[in-house]
Amino acid sequence: MTQTLTGPHTLEVALGDRSYPIHIGPGLLGEPGGLAPWLAGRQVMIVTNETVATLYLERCRKALPDDLELCELVLPDGEATKNLEHVSRIWDALLEAGFNRRCTLVALGGGVIGDMVGFAAACYQRGVAFIQVPTTLLAQVDSSVGGKTGVNHPLGKNMIGAFWQPRAVLIDTDTLATLPPRELSAGLAEVIKYGLIRDADFLAWLEQALPALRDLAPAALAHAIQRSCALKAEIVAEDETEQGVRALLNLGHTFGHAIEAHQGYGNWLHGEAVGTGMLMAAELSARLGWLTTDDVERVRAILRAAGLPLEAPAEMGVDDFLSRMRLDKKNVDSRLRLVLLPALGDACVDDATPEVTLATLLEQFPRG
Amino acid sequence: MTQTLTGPHTLEVALGDRSYPIHIGPGLLGEPGGLAPWLAGRQVMIVTNETVATLYLERCRKALPDDLELCELVLPDGEATKNLEHVSRIWDALLEAGFNRRCTLVALGGGVIGDMVGFAAACYQRGVAFIQVPTTLLAQVDSSVGGKTGVNHPLGKNMIGAFWQPRAVLIDTDTLATLPPRELSAGLAEVIKYGLIRDADFLAWLEQALPALRDLAPAALAHAIQRSCALKAEIVAEDETEQGVRALLNLGHTFGHAIEAHQGYGNWLHGEAVGTGMLMAAELSARLGWLTTDDVERVRAILRAAGLPLEAPAEMGVDDFLSRMRLDKKNVDSRLRLVLLPALGDACVDDATPEVTLATLLEQFPRG
Repeated sequence: MTQTLTGPHTLEVALGDRSYPIHIGPGLLGEPGGLAPWLAGRQVMIVTNETVATLYLERCRKALPDDLELCELVLPDGEATKNLEHVSRIWDALLEAGFNRRCTLVALGGGVIGDMVGFAAACYQRGVAFIQVPTTLLAQVDSSVGGKTGVNHPLGKNMIGAFWQPRAVLIDTDTLATLPPRELSAGLAEVIKYGLIRDADFLAWLEQALPALRDLAPAALAHAIQRSCALKAEIVAEDETEQGVRALLNLGHTFGHAIEAHQGYGNWLHGEAVGTGMLMAAELSARLGWLTTDDVERVRAILRAAGLPLEAPAEMGVDDFLSRMRLDKKNVDSRLRLVLLPALGDACVDDATPEVTLATLLEQFPRG
Repeated sequence: MTQTLTGPHTLEVALGDRSYPIHIGPGLLGEPGGLAPWLAGRQVMIVTNETVATLYLERCRKALPDDLELCELVLPDGEATKNLEHVSRIWDALLEAGFNRRCTLVALGGGVIGDMVGFAAACYQRGVAFIQVPTTLLAQVDSSVGGKTGVNHPLGKNMIGAFWQPRAVLIDTDTLATLPPRELSAGLAEVIKYGLIRDADFLAWLEQALPALRDLAPAALAHAIQRSCALKAEIVAEDETEQGVRALLNLGHTFGHAIEAHQGYGNWLHGEAVGTGMLMAAELSARLGWLTTDDVERVRAILRAAGLPLEAPAEMGVDDFLSRMRLDKKNVDSRLRLVLLPALGDACVDDATPEVTLATLLEQFPRG
């Protein structure tokens, strides 16, 4: 648990003939031809956003072989772009370039780019290859691994999408050097999540490591990313399409998605909403007699140390939460299902929370 | 080969844990609760078009149990509606109804409805259940079986889509009674296709049976549908995602898709374009020394007997064909791949046709 390698490290997401590697390390994008092993053919399109293009597009080009039909598409930034309209722009560009089923898409950017490019790849000519090159902490520890792709709908987050696995995930930890502190904090929310749902030792390590992580200390970051990816890879290999254990990765997300959708996508970062959502889930778990007050205070302290918001939006009423939460993908028929915490380091899916307990939590949870 | 059952008949598409039945017979839609075994939960949405709604929506409702959250969505008619905008309308309706991952979509209609509803199901919340209830001959013998779903793009047919298998296919042969003769002919093109690519005996049977089929003789229709579905189910079970043999089902489609896209979707029916495309493929096969002139005349006679067009659109030049055909999904890198006929009843994928041979065929093929 105190392994703190900073050199290249490789994990595998074990999914039979769709297994793929996650390469983690500094300087990976700079390696000439480093992306070559995972290309399906000679047609390659890098899709990125404006901010990331300025910083890393040139480096990404270098990681590709020379003799390609290479196209590049730069989309606008931000969660508000994660919609069908922008995925359609990827499809338009692929067709205009005459790309066929043996083409490969490279998703260079954060979670928004990864989710959209993955979905574009899933549906272009009924499925083509893609490679994840995540450049934010959130994408590196969570969204780039596991094949969940998709876009938002005005009525709900990630409502339109597909399970579609990448050929490889290439995590160049150097890209975090340019990540704004607010996005770093948002990524830490998902790192903390792994500790909360599955690894109490990792949670304890995080409690002392958060200052170093926020200072971008390479050894601490490398360990946090490796451990997060390893936990995610384990869960995905067990349950690719979320029939069971994978749902635990949604800790904080039912509350969080409601916040994001209500506030307008992009006003709260996904990780910020998940952070607050995890605190809400912890408080609800305490109200059900599972966590102690001390446990909840530990969760609050970790989130605070990560620089995450601890209060829900001032303008959100109980019904604003409930109406959005009823649309959650985990629900069965009209039954609400929540990921809760029997203990720190152990999560479960619960569909028996009394409505009044949930409503009281939603009413009493602090607003900011 | 002379089996002419008219009663209910069941085939299976063997795809492991995604296997599903094809039920074929008269009056199937009229059976109360007949769709019940394949529902994933209590939320069900029937999606159909205006013409089919008038004729069969009431009957389809009766095939469902009473205690459902039932929604109905009626889209406009025609191939021109097979686009992302109309699939989005399905997603909007599902979200507005608060439907979750355990919902079931019922595709009641022809190939356009089946392809769009299948794609909507494939991507709604990353995949929900759907049932095919095809009401045109073309959908019954081809598009409802095998899990190819998707929509057209201005630059190419079926360019955006997914492989997503239905839970069941319910073919009520009574629905053909209301099918316009032009659509019946279009469906016969796909029936003839099975004979051409895989079953010379069936082709010989069709040569004598076409008048009866065009008169909607129940026994002949039942046999044509059963044999077509059996051949399709065999091929799909062998090669679900078109890595090999499944590509043979595209006989005539590379030429045909070019015609459809050039003429504007819906002006030529899909089956009409495929019929002319099969004649073009047969003529090209003869130019390569594979088919005899007599073979080609046999193909021409069968298509004529089915009431299908034997000439390409007057306004389509050689480049109009070639530019569209270069976008075909079967192509690898920039190599054109065509389904051709070494003999009647035997097809292959060919990527070695000399360009000049293809261009000459395109130039000399009759225009109408």
